[in-house]
Parts: sequence; structure tokens; C-alpha cells
Amino acid sequence: MIHDSIINPEKIVTLPIGFRDILSPHADAEAKMIDVIMSIAISHGYMRVKPTLVEFENTLFNGPGLAISEQVFRLIDPISQHMIGLRADMTTQAARIASTIMIDAPRPVRLCYAGEVLLTTTNQLNPERELVQIGAELIGNSTADADAEVILLAIESLHTVGVKSISLDIMIPALVPLVLADMRLPAEIFSAVRQAINQKDIATVERLANSKSSVLVGLLKAFGPCEEAMRALSELELPDKARDFLVRPAEVIKLITNFEPNLSITVDPAENRGFEYHTGIAFSLFARGGRNEIGRGGRYQSDKDPKSTATGFTIYLERVLQILPKHQQTPTVYIPYGTPREQSMALRTRGQITIAGLTPVVDNYAEAKRMGCKSILLNGQTIDLSQY
Amino acid sequence: MIHDSIINPEKIVTLPIGFRDILSPHADAEAKMIDVIMSIAISHGYMRVKPTLVEFENTLFNGPGLAISEQVFRLIDPISQHMIGLRADMTTQAARIASTIMIDAPRPVRLCYAGEVLLTTTNQLNPERELVQIGAELIGNSTADADAEVILLAIESLHTVGVKSISLDIMIPALVPLVLADMRLPAEIFSAVRQAINQKDIATVERLANSKSSVLVGLLKAFGPCEEAMRALSELELPDKARDFLVRPAEVIKLITNFEPNLSITVDPAENRGFEYHTGIAFSLFARGGRNEIGRGGRYQSDKDPKSTATGFTIYLERVLQILPKHQQTPTVYIPYGTPREQSMALRTRGQITIAGLTPVVDNYAEAKRMGCKSILLNGQTIDLSQY
Repeated sequence: MIHDSIINPEKIVTLPIGFRDILSPHADAEAKMIDVIMSIAISHGYMRVKPTLVEFENTLFNGPGLAISEQVFRLIDPISQHMIGLRADMTTQAARIASTIMIDAPRPVRLCYAGEVLLTTTNQLNPERELVQIGAELIGNSTADADAEVILLAIESLHTVGVKSISLDIMIPALVPLVLADMRLPAEIFSAVRQAINQKDIATVERLANSKSSVLVGLLKAFGPCEEAMRALSELELPDKARDFLVRPAEVIKLITNFEPNLSITVDPAENRGFEYHTGIAFSLFARGGRNEIGRGGRYQSDKDPKSTATGFTIYLERVLQILPKHQQTPTVYIPYGTPREQSMALRTRGQITIAGLTPVVDNYAEAKRMGCKSILLNGQTIDLSQY
Repeated sequence: MIHDSIINPEKIVTLPIGFRDILSPHADAEAKMIDVIMSIAISHGYMRVKPTLVEFENTLFNGPGLAISEQVFRLIDPISQHMIGLRADMTTQAARIASTIMIDAPRPVRLCYAGEVLLTTTNQLNPERELVQIGAELIGNSTADADAEVILLAIESLHTVGVKSISLDIMIPALVPLVLADMRLPAEIFSAVRQAINQKDIATVERLANSKSSVLVGLLKAFGPCEEAMRALSELELPDKARDFLVRPAEVIKLITNFEPNLSITVDPAENRGFEYHTGIAFSLFARGGRNEIGRGGRYQSDKDPKSTATGFTIYLERVLQILPKHQQTPTVYIPYGTPREQSMALRTRGQITIAGLTPVVDNYAEAKRMGCKSILLNGQTIDLSQY
């Protein structure tokens, strides 16, 4: 098998920025991870769907899809002469499937999926434009148990693929907009305050919002381990509507800690970047100590029907693979030319990888080494090559 | 789990012609088949690669890629402002990887891959524009053993996924052009003869090629079970260069019959449609009795370097799935609200699919049935619902 040292970086062809070929063993590791996570989701009753890679603009940008319309590669379909786009997100496709072809399926509908998404833009944090999205959605149930189910499913998935210690960050994206609306700030400072909150810039919030700033500053400071954060939040003088939004996180945290008592859970009530279409609690998943989000999700409205509330998660395959131990090439066995096929087949049946010699050679040992094999099959015996 | 009867065909959203969402259990069946075929190829030393979905035109249309350039969705990359295309074939991508980033890997290089390809055009025989291509390529070895290896690998793959009786059709796409070149037909009738051969129209070939027609007619008639066909071919008065092309099919047939004595093998020496870039033998695979090709492949030149001769196969996932027994939904077990998680986990560990109740209900049996479950977990016991 090829080793990274054999890859010739000078011979890489130019691909568009953000695109790259995935080679062995990384391609195997990707496929394996997708398979494991899908199997777990399926065992919990999530039905696997494979939405189309291409859609007409009107369905692609429908509902929550509008939020990422700028990221979509668009082109004209030569058959219909209409604009089509390459999917940049599969959550919205699962929601579309649930609310159209599967509208008559009993609620809640549980769906899972894995596939490539393509983005037009790139940034320093996310340099890739072709990514694998793995996700699951629970559509048509508004309970805290549903929120907890998808979070626990994401955590079970990450544990099973080998992520050791996971931390969960819970956000309440609707909270800040509600508090701000209630404050009736003058229009000229509203967006400046909003920006300062997004940047967690307490000094600017205090200066701009003045006497009204204490609740906002309280929200910004109520960040950290879930118990302290929830207590700090409960002590804030929040408007009633905003206070209602504190009930759900508390319920969900309780349900999750029942099953995962050692999970590190933080609450970040003022954070809402990237969760613009979320209507309930949202969450991010980190490998403890890591700075990069490895998964995220939350509750959103999957279409205009108020009954179609949904909650789901996305796992970022590439980021999970980055933090796991590097996938090793499986050692291979060289099969000299003319070896009866039954002998090599017996090795493959036992999980070994065989490399068949296609021509007679003078020195089978040398040929096996040239092909990068760790052993050779001679007279029905596997001989380790490291001693030669 | 959803049943086909639950799908509401009136609510299907309009997708571009040739595109469709794949639902459960078909999406599971696809993923399973990809996994099985990749595992078999990997066990034979084929390294899995995942080429990028998008490339610049100049690499996409390089070498054998030119033959399908008309089928490629093209658009402008907003970052580079250059034309990019969505892959319509992965064979050429594997060849590109072997001859660039993997140029220093020991030859032969064995690669395998599975992924979506997108086509701009559609026809009655192939109505889909988004297809899954599964394939393997053996690059840098010109022997008959290499040809036989990929054919046997394709057959092993199809057997393992459940295709019962397979038939192999061997073609020699370079034969007709060689014979025609040797005949030095007048330019005005050359293309008409070529077309008549493609249509297997013996009468027209006889009328046009006149006294020179006997070899051409002989090629057209030498079609059928491999022994008879090879004998008929050997009796034709072929030019020496063309005669050389008969050696390889005979060798490959011998190697294949050694391992697959019961395989039905036919030879079709005059067929070359769709094999324009093939330089050696080409082949099609059929499920016996079926009319649709389920796989194909052959020998080609993977780049300009004469040493980079390659042979490989492609399996058409959708066509294989069509001839297999329909994938059944796995029965599901309803888990009433409040059941300890350990109990449902025990079922999942044993391979069962559980559907968790997210709210307390008055009648758990009715709720289990509404959710389409076949059984219910009560007091640690799984109870079959068919009697209720």
C-alpha cells in the first residue's frame, strides 16, 4: 500500500481552491466513519435518505435554505434552461423530503444522511469547499426529549468513532433578539449594540446601552459550566418572554446528564452566530481541549407549518478525522505469480489484503518489498519480510 | 419505518429531469453495496481514493476525459474565475491521480472508488443524470493476468452482492478500425460501412464493401459463445496486425475459465460503441437473461506515457440494485416513554431498530402501531404487535 512518503507533492495537479483528492487510507477512514455513524442513527429509527446533489433554485433556497444561498454554486440546466444549484447543506434537503414526499409518514419523522456539500466561498477557518456532511433530523416533535435525543445521538456517534472526551456547549439564539426587542433601543445604536454582543465586547455594550446595559452584560457574563450559567441567568431581570426560553435548556441539560453524567456541558446564552434559522436551543460539540467545533445542531422550523418543528445535528467529518489518531495502512501480503487462487482467497477471507504478482519474477522477496508488502505467501505459508 | 405505501407521490417536489431523492430502504441498500464492493477491492490490494467532485476543465477533459466532455455540467468558479466542471466519470480521475500525485507509487497501482457522477444529458436507456459509479483500476501492467484480475474482481463483487448468474461479453474495439484501415476503402463509403458495422447490418456491409466485404461480414458473424466465436475469428483472413489482437482475448478467456468454469462468456468482436478510448480488450457484464449492462470495463491508455496502460471496471449501482430482490425495511421496536435507556440499548446492541416514544401516551400499543412498529418493549419484554 502507498505511504504518505510516496506521495509526490510536486506532481499534484492544480484543483480549484478548496478541493482536493482524498487518497488511501484517508478515504477508507471517511467511509468507515460515515458507515458507523449512519448505523447508529439507523438503530435509533432514523431512516437513511440520499437527497439529490442538484436542485432547482426555488426548492434549494426555500425556508432555512435561504440563509446559505450565497454559498451555492449555481448554473443553468441545459435541459430545462432553469437555474439549478449544487447543495451546500443537507439539513434543508432532509426537511424538504419530510415536508413533501414523506408528508404522510407518521410524526415524528427521523431521517439521517451523509454526503458531499459544496460551497462557493472559503475562509481561513474553513478552507474546504467540498465537505462531507453527516447528520440526523427529528421532525415533528417539540419536546425536550426530542432535543435531548438528537444531542445524545450525536454524542453516541462521536464516542463510537473514537472521540474520547466531548464537551457540549448549549446556546439560546433567540434570547438576545428578544431582550433587545424588549429594550426598545434607539434605531441608531441598535445594530452597534448587536455587533458588540456578537463580539462579546462588554465595555462597548455598557457604553452604548448605558443604563439599560445590565441585562445584556448579565447575558454575556452568564457563560460557562451549565449549573453556574443557568443560575446566573435565572437571577437576571429578563422580560417574561425571554424567561420562558430558560425552561427548555434546563430540561434538556437534566435529560442529558441522566445518561451522560460525566459530560462537560457549558451554556453560552448570548451566542447566536451561525444559528440564524434556529428557533429553540442550539448546540456545538467540541472534543475537550479542542478549539474547533466538530458538530453542531439545534431546533429550527423546517417549513412554514407550525407543526413542523425539527431538531437535528450535523457532524463535520473532516474535523473529527483530524483529531483522531491517524488511520494506518493495513499491511499487505505479496502473492507470487502462479500461486493457486484458493491460497490467497483464504488470506482475504481472514481479513488480509493481498497483492497479486502479475508476472513471474526472479526474486519474489525483492518484488514483494518493491510493492511495499510486509509479508509474502510462499508454499502456503505467510513469511514476514521484516527479517529480509 | 416508512413503507412505500406511505410515500405521497403527489407531494414530490419538482427536481430537474434525471435527479431524484433516494429514500430508505433504497439509500441503505446503495450504501451497503458500495461498502461490500469496496471491501472486496481493498482485500485485493486496491487502494480506495475519493477524487474531488469538481475540477478545472483542463484536467477534467484531459486524455480519456475528452470523450465525455459534452456530458459535463460546466460553470464558472467564483474564486478563480475559471471554468470548472462536475465529474461525469471517475475512471479518468483515478488515472489522473495515478499519473500525478501517485506517480512515484510502485507499479502496478491498484485504485478503487465509489461516488456520484453527474451528466448533462439523458436518454431513454439511461434516464438518470446523477448516478453512482463504482470502479477499480489496475494501472501500469499490460499482461493478460491484469486483464483477467479486474474481470474476476468485477465478477466476485457482483456475486457477493447477490447477482446470481453473470455473463461476460468480451469485445475487441480496436479490431474493426484495424481491418477497415487495411482495406483502404474509398473515403466516400468508409463512414457508411463503419455505420453499417455498428448497426450490425450485414446486408448493407455486403452491398457497400462489395468484394472486400467477406472479412467484415465474418467479424459480424463471429459473435456468440467464446469457443465458437474465437474459432470463427481464427479462420478469417485478417491482416497480421489484426490477428495479433486475437491472442489476448484467448489468453484472458483461459485465465478466467480456470477460476470461473461455469461463467457464460461470449465474444462480440465487431462491437465498439462506448469503448472509443479502449486500446485492448473491453468487456460488458450482464445478469444472465437481463438485457441491461450492469458493468463494463477494459484496457485503455491512462495518459500519454506508453507505460501507463491501464485496465479497470465500472459497476452501475442502480442497475445492479434493480435486478436484486427488493431491500426490505427492518422491523422496528417501539420504546414507550420513560423506558430505561439501558433496555433499548440492549436491543440496539443485538441489531434491532428502536423507535423512542417522546411523550407519555394513553395507549402505547396504538402509538407503536401508528409509528409503524412491529413490536413493543414493555417491562423488559419485546411483544409482537401482529396479534393486537
